[in-house]
Amino acid sequence: MAKDMTLLWGSGSPPCWRVMIALEEKQLQGYNQKLLSFEKAEHKSKEVLDINPRGQLPAFKHGDNILNESYAACMYLESRFRSQGPQLIPEGQLEQALMYQRMFEVLNLSDKLSNVIYYNYRVPEGERHDSAIKRNKENLAAEIKLWEGYFQKVEAGSYLAGKAFSLADVIVFPVIAYAFRFGLSTERYPKLGAYYNMVKDRPSVKATWPPHWLENPQGGDTLKEF
Amino acid sequence: MAKDMTLLWGSGSPPCWRVMIALEEKQLQGYNQKLLSFEKAEHKSKEVLDINPRGQLPAFKHGDNILNESYAACMYLESRFRSQGPQLIPEGQLEQALMYQRMFEVLNLSDKLSNVIYYNYRVPEGERHDSAIKRNKENLAAEIKLWEGYFQKVEAGSYLAGKAFSLADVIVFPVIAYAFRFGLSTERYPKLGAYYNMVKDRPSVKATWPPHWLENPQGGDTLKEF
Repeated sequence: MAKDMTLLWGSGSPPCWRVMIALEEKQLQGYNQKLLSFEKAEHKSKEVLDINPRGQLPAFKHGDNILNESYAACMYLESRFRSQGPQLIPEGQLEQALMYQRMFEVLNLSDKLSNVIYYNYRVPEGERHDSAIKRNKENLAAEIKLWEGYFQKVEAGSYLAGKAFSLADVIVFPVIAYAFRFGLSTERYPKLGAYYNMVKDRPSVKATWPPHWLENPQGGDTLKEF
Repeated sequence: MAKDMTLLWGSGSPPCWRVMIALEEKQLQGYNQKLLSFEKAEHKSKEVLDINPRGQLPAFKHGDNILNESYAACMYLESRFRSQGPQLIPEGQLEQALMYQRMFEVLNLSDKLSNVIYYNYRVPEGERHDSAIKRNKENLAAEIKLWEGYFQKVEAGSYLAGKAFSLADVIVFPVIAYAFRFGLSTERYPKLGAYYNMVKDRPSVKATWPPHWLENPQGGDTLKEF
């Protein structure tokens, strides 16, 4: 069905997961795909570099069109296959505004998460500082509280941009799932937890759940103190 | 004409500039606007925090719709005022794919630029390392070469996603202008330079040129060695 599409991806990467959720939502199963290992540095292989010169995953092609940025791929798929599967951009102007605002502001959350979870991976040993670790944690804690607050203001059972699942959820959910995977407490963040529990059972999300999370449901506990 | 819109902005900030270019393109002049000073930390004022809880600029409102992320504001304005001014999302699928890919991958360029230009501003004194400065410069140099290469592959006079000015240009141009402002050499990057020189004369871009760049046309020379 989607034989003219190729996706190179890594398990657990929110950007990869977004593209996979969008493909499921748009009923584009059957695309060519290959799971690569970050640990083995397969994202720096020639196969990836031929599509994505930065050596990052996802690397995604539809025919000759290359869409490596997860936002680009999701927006392209929705535009190209608008009438296939649910419409992922709401018609209502209020909902559309909220969708755009949430899907882009989550870049703040994912950056701040990475700065905490991947500090040692990102920062060479001789350049690490306790003061930076402390600051990164404070920034992340404030950011998570902001998102919990967003969900406090909407009706229970709502998606990010209203009653319908939208691109905002495609983009944001993997980041929130990541936070819970790394130990965020659903008791301290009950609204985020309720959203997480609602969306994790959506068919497109279940079908694309990171395989190594299934194998090993116990994630890290970096965010336990948050 | 656009009296139901309010923009709080800072001079020279690429995210602010994007929103202003999009407003010009969509013929939405006459919006309420206020130039704030980063130096005086006015982006952390109550006025901004009431719209943008992160205390960042732009802070943008249309009626009750809040769109603080520059990408969100630009996409919203194009969607909401599609038939006003030029269409900023091309119809062609090839052009649309290229538009999405370029407009999102420029986040790599802007991050790497900031890491070099604002290193001392971002990293407290006791946490600075020559090794980090060196790595940041190498990353930026590779990224700039990538963009020069993109322009080598397209016809002279083309915009980022083809023959028409698109959202990709609205989003990417301010970042490229920033690089030249900080000393990037048009001789070493002639294709980027040609693009810069073409787009800087576009009416929407001229009308929104950062006022303190006009006052003081000489920028920094951080990128002179690149």
